[in-house]
Amino acid sequence: MTELDGVDFHQQRIERLQARLNDDGVDVAVFGPSADLFYLTGFDAHDSERLNLLVIPQSGKPSLIVPTLEAPLVGDAARLVDMHTWADHEDPAALAATVLGDVTGKTLAVGNQLWSAFLLRIQAGAGPANWVEAAPITRHLRMIKDAAEVDALAEVSRRTDQAWEEFIEGPPIGGLTETDALKRLRELTEKRGLKVGWGICASGPNAASPHHHTGNRVIQEGDSVIFDWGGTLDGYNSDVTRTVHVGTPGEEYRRVYQVVLEANQATFEAVRPGVPLQELDRVARKVITDAGFGEAFLHRVGHGLGLEVHEEPYLVEGNDLPLAPGMTFSDEPGIYLKGNLGVRIEDTVVCTEDGAIRLNHATRELTVMD
Amino acid sequence: MTELDGVDFHQQRIERLQARLNDDGVDVAVFGPSADLFYLTGFDAHDSERLNLLVIPQSGKPSLIVPTLEAPLVGDAARLVDMHTWADHEDPAALAATVLGDVTGKTLAVGNQLWSAFLLRIQAGAGPANWVEAAPITRHLRMIKDAAEVDALAEVSRRTDQAWEEFIEGPPIGGLTETDALKRLRELTEKRGLKVGWGICASGPNAASPHHHTGNRVIQEGDSVIFDWGGTLDGYNSDVTRTVHVGTPGEEYRRVYQVVLEANQATFEAVRPGVPLQELDRVARKVITDAGFGEAFLHRVGHGLGLEVHEEPYLVEGNDLPLAPGMTFSDEPGIYLKGNLGVRIEDTVVCTEDGAIRLNHATRELTVMD
Repeated sequence: MTELDGVDFHQQRIERLQARLNDDGVDVAVFGPSADLFYLTGFDAHDSERLNLLVIPQSGKPSLIVPTLEAPLVGDAARLVDMHTWADHEDPAALAATVLGDVTGKTLAVGNQLWSAFLLRIQAGAGPANWVEAAPITRHLRMIKDAAEVDALAEVSRRTDQAWEEFIEGPPIGGLTETDALKRLRELTEKRGLKVGWGICASGPNAASPHHHTGNRVIQEGDSVIFDWGGTLDGYNSDVTRTVHVGTPGEEYRRVYQVVLEANQATFEAVRPGVPLQELDRVARKVITDAGFGEAFLHRVGHGLGLEVHEEPYLVEGNDLPLAPGMTFSDEPGIYLKGNLGVRIEDTVVCTEDGAIRLNHATRELTVMD
Repeated sequence: MTELDGVDFHQQRIERLQARLNDDGVDVAVFGPSADLFYLTGFDAHDSERLNLLVIPQSGKPSLIVPTLEAPLVGDAARLVDMHTWADHEDPAALAATVLGDVTGKTLAVGNQLWSAFLLRIQAGAGPANWVEAAPITRHLRMIKDAAEVDALAEVSRRTDQAWEEFIEGPPIGGLTETDALKRLRELTEKRGLKVGWGICASGPNAASPHHHTGNRVIQEGDSVIFDWGGTLDGYNSDVTRTVHVGTPGEEYRRVYQVVLEANQATFEAVRPGVPLQELDRVARKVITDAGFGEAFLHRVGHGLGLEVHEEPYLVEGNDLPLAPGMTFSDEPGIYLKGNLGVRIEDTVVCTEDGAIRLNHATRELTVMD
């Protein structure tokens, strides 16, 4: 897709970026394979040891440096750029220096995820300049989702919720390994047309490790089990966490679950335009701290979500950027009791003029599985 | 696993790196989540916007900067390092500056794949220093595989071959989409205990695009179909390409297939210690050019393979590094005729004292599927 309502929205995004470069006194921005590149051009470049580089000056047509063998992948994005291909025996950093021209005294912004090796080679080839991060510029475009983007996020979230509902009504998970339980949930998600690339199943004491590497522990009676997963549809991501208990839960689990649920709800209710992002983290942290679990809430309350599973804005102490309509992010408080259990509840939330809308509707009620 | 024959091989690798740093006049090397980090410590860190950083001085114990919520993932690797955790509201670049200390006048090497944003933040925090790529140092360790690594590569390759043999003896692929044909091959690979994360199925005219994005084109009679895929076992990768023809092939396909097969074999036979890596590319290119297809061989003949699917050494014009026993790489010539067809044949090959050994034994004979 290159047009939306008759507008070339990639061209429009590039022009908005160029206006920002101008405002911020940045002469050129460069991007490797990344969500930035995809957002700006629709080109889903291969991230590898072969340099792909989008070069956007303050005004005029951008340039795209691309390996010869990957040139067919550029597709429609070729309309937006001057193409510069390089063969495997050629030096792409030298090509980048040529495309950049004389950078003496200029300020160049670089996309967050460009490999350091490429940055060092381009710096060596291009000569002395002032290099800065591009993220403070790109985030102002990407973190405010337009209506089509919110629709895409709602749809991918809806299908992910459906997978969850089918999962918890399905066969018991007690006796399965974490890997096999996650596989079942992934397959239910893929069945709905989503591409699934990552996921966490953390059971029993492993649930106390927020980014646990899913493994071969067998899920058993008495476990809390965290499932944190998502999928991709048309480039946009879902990211949901639900925690279940295997067998009848005791008082401690019920208490922890209730506190996390309240923190999730309090965060949701605090969303409105103008509120500093860090305030959402404080709201969640207050609920959990007041309940006596402050030390066990090991991470920020959320992160932006869109073309990347983690992107700006981050809901973290120290981020005083104000909430704005179109910001889409996770609301995911958690409590982690080492060696014992963990609970996390995560929804994707959109900020609107009138407050928050949840994109996830899979049940947040305390759920028991066999 | 932390020991092999009673030796802490990660500790040994770190010491070998430190000796190299000393030889090359590099004061400190830093690595983000990457195969370098895994090779040196066994820590499979999460690559994200949260900084994980291994800091290795010329001598003494390395430091590891890790997000609090991911500290449980460090596991046994903690024995090798001084741990420095940081919470989400803290600044990891400031922590890195503290760990690095005064870097004035020092030379610091950075792992290839560390995000540029992290490099810029660390540079800003640490003050002026001379930053270089770490790859010229790490490659001397990683590109020479020891016996255990070659065994691991042989096993993952063997299982991938088995998947292929079952695939070509299975149901017809004509009428399937590229996505569904690839899915079948992936499942046969996963069935053998491999983790499968990437893969290409490129059919008909799409086969002329070496890195084609597998899509919904329906495979049909008369197509050449390239399958380029692999899996991971215990961290080590396979990477195989086979090309099949759907229905009886014509003269052109037979001719192209034969030329690629000869180039693959000629490359294989040219492998021996001391031969410059670029010579292998030249050998393959000569076979293909002499047959009149030189312009249609769009890429180098191969790349190193190990903990990464693409790693040093690269078999490319301009790389005069000599072959050495233990180097493990792909041998993958190809011919791509735009709008028409493509053929690529790829094996993993190990250089030994006595020449090459192939790790792939899936048939290279011209294969016809329905």
